Amino acid sequence: MSEIKNSNTPANPQDIKKIALLTSGGDAPGMNAAIRAIVRSAIYYNLKVVGVKNGFSGLINNDFIEMKSHSVSKIISRGGTILKSSRCPEFKMQQGRERAFNNMKAAGIDALIVNGGDGSFRGADLLYKEFGIPVIGIPCTIDNDIYGTDFTIGFDSAINTVIRAVDNIRDTAESHNILFFVEVMGRHSGFIALNSSIASGAEATLLPEIQTDIDQLCHFMEMERRKNKTSGIVIVAEGDEEGGAAEIAQKVKQRLPNYETRVTTLGHIQRGGSPSCNDRVLASLLGHAAVKGLLEGKTGLMAGQVNREIVFTPLEEAYTKRDKIDKNWIEISKIISM
Amino acid sequence: MSEIKNSNTPANPQDIKKIALLTSGGDAPGMNAAIRAIVRSAIYYNLKVVGVKNGFSGLINNDFIEMKSHSVSKIISRGGTILKSSRCPEFKMQQGRERAFNNMKAAGIDALIVNGGDGSFRGADLLYKEFGIPVIGIPCTIDNDIYGTDFTIGFDSAINTVIRAVDNIRDTAESHNILFFVEVMGRHSGFIALNSSIASGAEATLLPEIQTDIDQLCHFMEMERRKNKTSGIVIVAEGDEEGGAAEIAQKVKQRLPNYETRVTTLGHIQRGGSPSCNDRVLASLLGHAAVKGLLEGKTGLMAGQVNREIVFTPLEEAYTKRDKIDKNWIEISKIISM
Amino acid sequence: MSEIKNSNTPANPQDIKKIALLTSGGDAPGMNAAIRAIVRSAIYYNLKVVGVKNGFSGLINNDFIEMKSHSVSKIISRGGTILKSSRCPEFKMQQGRERAFNNMKAAGIDALIVNGGDGSFRGADLLYKEFGIPVIGIPCTIDNDIYGTDFTIGFDSAINTVIRAVDNIRDTAESHNILFFVEVMGRHSGFIALNSSIASGAEATLLPEIQTDIDQLCHFMEMERRKNKTSGIVIVAEGDEEGGAAEIAQKVKQRLPNYETRVTTLGHIQRGGSPSCNDRVLASLLGHAAVKGLLEGKTGLMAGQVNREIVFTPLEEAYTKRDKIDKNWIEISKIISM
Amino acid sequence: MSEIKNSNTPANPQDIKKIALLTSGGDAPGMNAAIRAIVRSAIYYNLKVVGVKNGFSGLINNDFIEMKSHSVSKIISRGGTILKSSRCPEFKMQQGRERAFNNMKAAGIDALIVNGGDGSFRGADLLYKEFGIPVIGIPCTIDNDIYGTDFTIGFDSAINTVIRAVDNIRDTAESHNILFFVEVMGRHSGFIALNSSIASGAEATLLPEIQTDIDQLCHFMEMERRKNKTSGIVIVAEGDEEGGAAEIAQKVKQRLPNYETRVTTLGHIQRGGSPSCNDRVLASLLGHAAVKGLLEGKTGLMAGQVNREIVFTPLEEAYTKRDKIDKNWIEISKIISM
Repeated sequence: MSEIKNSNTPANPQDIKKIALLTSGGDAPGMNAAIRAIVRSAIYYNLKVVGVKNGFSGLINNDFIEMKSHSVSKIISRGGTILKSSRCPEFKMQQGRERAFNNMKAAGIDALIVNGGDGSFRGADLLYKEFGIPVIGIPCTIDNDIYGTDFTIGFDSAINTVIRAVDNIRDTAESHNILFFVEVMGRHSGFIALNSSIASGAEATLLPEIQTDIDQLCHFMEMERRKNKTSGIVIVAEGDEEGGAAEIAQKVKQRLPNYETRVTTLGHIQRGGSPSCNDRVLASLLGHAAVKGLLEGKTGLMAGQVNREIVFTPLEEAYTKRDKIDKNWIEISKIISM
Repeated sequence: MSEIKNSNTPANPQDIKKIALLTSGGDAPGMNAAIRAIVRSAIYYNLKVVGVKNGFSGLINNDFIEMKSHSVSKIISRGGTILKSSRCPEFKMQQGRERAFNNMKAAGIDALIVNGGDGSFRGADLLYKEFGIPVIGIPCTIDNDIYGTDFTIGFDSAINTVIRAVDNIRDTAESHNILFFVEVMGRHSGFIALNSSIASGAEATLLPEIQTDIDQLCHFMEMERRKNKTSGIVIVAEGDEEGGAAEIAQKVKQRLPNYETRVTTLGHIQRGGSPSCNDRVLASLLGHAAVKGLLEGKTGLMAGQVNREIVFTPLEEAYTKRDKIDKNWIEISKIISM
Repeated sequence: MSEIKNSNTPANPQDIKKIALLTSGGDAPGMNAAIRAIVRSAIYYNLKVVGVKNGFSGLINNDFIEMKSHSVSKIISRGGTILKSSRCPEFKMQQGRERAFNNMKAAGIDALIVNGGDGSFRGADLLYKEFGIPVIGIPCTIDNDIYGTDFTIGFDSAINTVIRAVDNIRDTAESHNILFFVEVMGRHSGFIALNSSIASGAEATLLPEIQTDIDQLCHFMEMERRKNKTSGIVIVAEGDEEGGAAEIAQKVKQRLPNYETRVTTLGHIQRGGSPSCNDRVLASLLGHAAVKGLLEGKTGLMAGQVNREIVFTPLEEAYTKRDKIDKNWIEISKIISM
Repeated sequence: MSEIKNSNTPANPQDIKKIALLTSGGDAPGMNAAIRAIVRSAIYYNLKVVGVKNGFSGLINNDFIEMKSHSVSKIISRGGTILKSSRCPEFKMQQGRERAFNNMKAAGIDALIVNGGDGSFRGADLLYKEFGIPVIGIPCTIDNDIYGTDFTIGFDSAINTVIRAVDNIRDTAESHNILFFVEVMGRHSGFIALNSSIASGAEATLLPEIQTDIDQLCHFMEMERRKNKTSGIVIVAEGDEEGGAAEIAQKVKQRLPNYETRVTTLGHIQRGGSPSCNDRVLASLLGHAAVKGLLEGKTGLMAGQVNREIVFTPLEEAYTKRDKIDKNWIEISKIISM
């Protein structure tokens, strides 16, 4: 199997008659649009398609359903994933993956498309490398933290959900002269926080990528107050090294006792909802590209979009490298929120 | 002053030439629509109108601005309150209210309209009873906990915000087979929780008005699971006597360790946002009614809507009595969420 | 059959073991919530439930499907109707209804719940009167033009859709100093127009219930212009006797050639979309009430909500009488949009 | 002046002390975010800023207002443009532009930023070429038809508005088995139509860039019907050479008389509304870049974003060249809507 490990050796594309697809990791708006695109494209190219329920655990538990064109009717506008998702510790062990592979073989499945984030790609990559089965990944996560694509599916919907929520919160902030700390998702990366912060005109943004300095933040707030700006929004990325919004709000309150502060953790509303136009389009393009890629012999790769072109990146790069936030944006964000 | 205390003696309506208005307490979507209706109606009836900033503290601090027709242009669709709101401990003391009254007299203000909730009406009522100045209240709170009106301004917007959020959360709940505990606002009353629970098809609802039985809740969840209903939403009113969503989730988790649970506290997104059609209409009608009421000699009253008619209720009743939730709804909610 | 015609003779409720339900007429947001409530309530009360596809034509064509609890999972938040709707000219003839009745008997259906508007109730009433089969109607139409209920299911969603659209249009109206004529639905009644007009702060409203005077409208617009109000929104009910928005805009343009005018007909976006909280709650309550009503021997009636109570009204009254708009609202609308 | 005409000769950047900005052409969501970014950035770089009302006609009529940091508070989330926009035939004549230039000089304005589309850039370019005044353009139009930027400001908001509307319409289409023709904006280009069509799963898309074949469309519809797909959405770009949605629907109806068809023209709702996150971010980045560009001596250029980098393109290229739709997308759209 070593030759498989060392290269993206294509399978013989004409051997592919039946493919499977699954969704794994945290759900993201647009997953259903990707499922639809994969199923419809596969049928168009005369492939059979099998949906795997509950992510990798469906592979292990033989939880397969045949997908027809109408199985994916009307799902493009829906959040979540009709195939469901779950954690699967068993798949992290070689013997779990072997069982998955054997189930796939028994079901006549020739290739697999995995919709998920970095953890899912890690599993998908192992499956490919250990058993040589053609695998393609599609980046689905609201966090936008996958290398090899300008945007992940779900990110655009999430940032729009965040700014609508922050627009709501600003109504109260201004009406009551309150300093709000709003915690947003994003795991170890600040994409959601930075984009939504610029777009909602937040007064400050705390990101995992930037050392948070509470004193400086307090100093800035005092300066704002002198300019009669008496309310404010601080966006806190959940991965910030100084703690979550609640902890940071407390530290600020200790230094600025005259401020009235509030904390809101947006939570899981960020993962759901009808996907945005961009997420639906991106999911449609990548879903189609993944199927076509398999038929062209591609494997061990993630289908992404870079500079508006479809680009395939080795899964291993996708989950080991990281997209970086543009630090100029932080500077610009400060300039225009003053 | 005793005769004033004991009756709703009307002022001489033709003496009213200039009125003031303020917003007080927690902000609610529709407050701006009420401000607009009051200002425009007052101008239509040839009154001068003064906006008081920051609730009752604006009365104490002489924070007055003249309102023109164009001062309220384009605000009907906006959340929050352009007059701002704040707590005012000073107004709870008789000497604070005296100062407020003197400021109003000095500014030539003949009557006051107070937009707020029960705390605000308490203050407004004291001002009226102690100093005889004509005062009318308009019920503005998302909590819907005011006696004398079928709905308070802001409630309809809040429940729509809640169900959109719960619709989002349901995407994740279903995709991951998670039991979500969603905490909603409402202080001591369960209106927001009950309405949004029915409308979002929540599997269970915990209300301050009903004794919460964690064992029964767990039993119900187990029954659901046997029917293969593997995800769920439990709406928890913030005033529930068993604690907030986090505490209750923890208690459930102890009894049902196999369940995957999550907690989301919707927080201040519920207070903001562009008001719903009903809230804008209600605010428009009550704002107009309050001005007209003052000109008809009404005082010490709250303008509400009962059975689609404008009804005036003594402020004291409005803040001492309570609207009750309809317990049949709880039963129906259970029947149709099964 | 004459005794049936002359009274609301109850069927023997204990004979009812299986009920059918259908949706008919124009679709309305909340129909799915009503379907869900009916199905779940029926199952709760140990009835079998049959869904009829495509309205009355499904009765004629034997287009029946058994409904289970899970058949209505997740539909509460969706617009449209999973049972579909259609026109059925055949049902307008006695022989069509006879065929429908025979099909129902053959399928063992003991009673019928009809979700629709006045035309649907007319058909339902004939079925009941001619064949004595227990029938209950639930008012579903965005037009709010049904007697016997304060609000019809779908109305609240529609007016919210309208005001969001008008809020959008106002952005352009103000940016370009344009006078917009926005045509909204409502057939012969002005409920949608009047409610959305107040809520969007429209400068004028043209309703079927009020004689439209184009000269007066133009005079009013000129007065507004003198006050430097250079843009505006005129809401035109589709049933206005002076014609649709396009025709009226043309007439205004002839008299006021210096005005820049635009016309937007909102069209079918008003019928769709995720239902509002109120519509979901109302549909849940009425769906449950209809089932319970059948079991209590009610028939030939519509389940409505009046002053927050469930009220049953003879179907014949529901489709012959008319709810009236409150003409005070028109006056208030003018006062506060100045 | 010939040397100015032939090159993008930079002005001496240190001479720039006061800049003006205007919005021109059709309004687009995000224009206010651009205004905010320009004003705040200019103040940050120690420039004075003048807002010009009503587009180029404000230059001719001396309609200037000084902009402060607080002048642009809270506008980032609002559609339309606080500076308003208008057509200006006078500016198309050299003598109109001369008057504009003289007014600018008299007001001490050293440079101009123009937010608009191709017509606006044409005017801006002439002003720069004739009078040598530094000018930078920012692409604001929902149509996305400007060369030199991946996306124009407003496009992302518009396509999201379109898909929400089409999602609504789909509810009715499916409930009634109707074939809907939905006309969307975009002038001569099909970006809005194509993106929203993919994202809403439309059954067919008619674009100005592709020869529309009514017979083929009817053939396709018949094929769909054979697969029991009985409802459908056809997105029609307003610039389609076969006519608008109404005309095309009529032609289809003649060939397929058994189809029930409906037409909806989305109209001006597409131009308004709170901008999407992407539009707010793009407007913020380009607004900042335009100011910085002026200070670096750039002129006669448009600030755009290409492959996530700020790129300056000669205005003349921006309004003469055209971005092309990606024809692969049309193919993919067909594959996945089957």
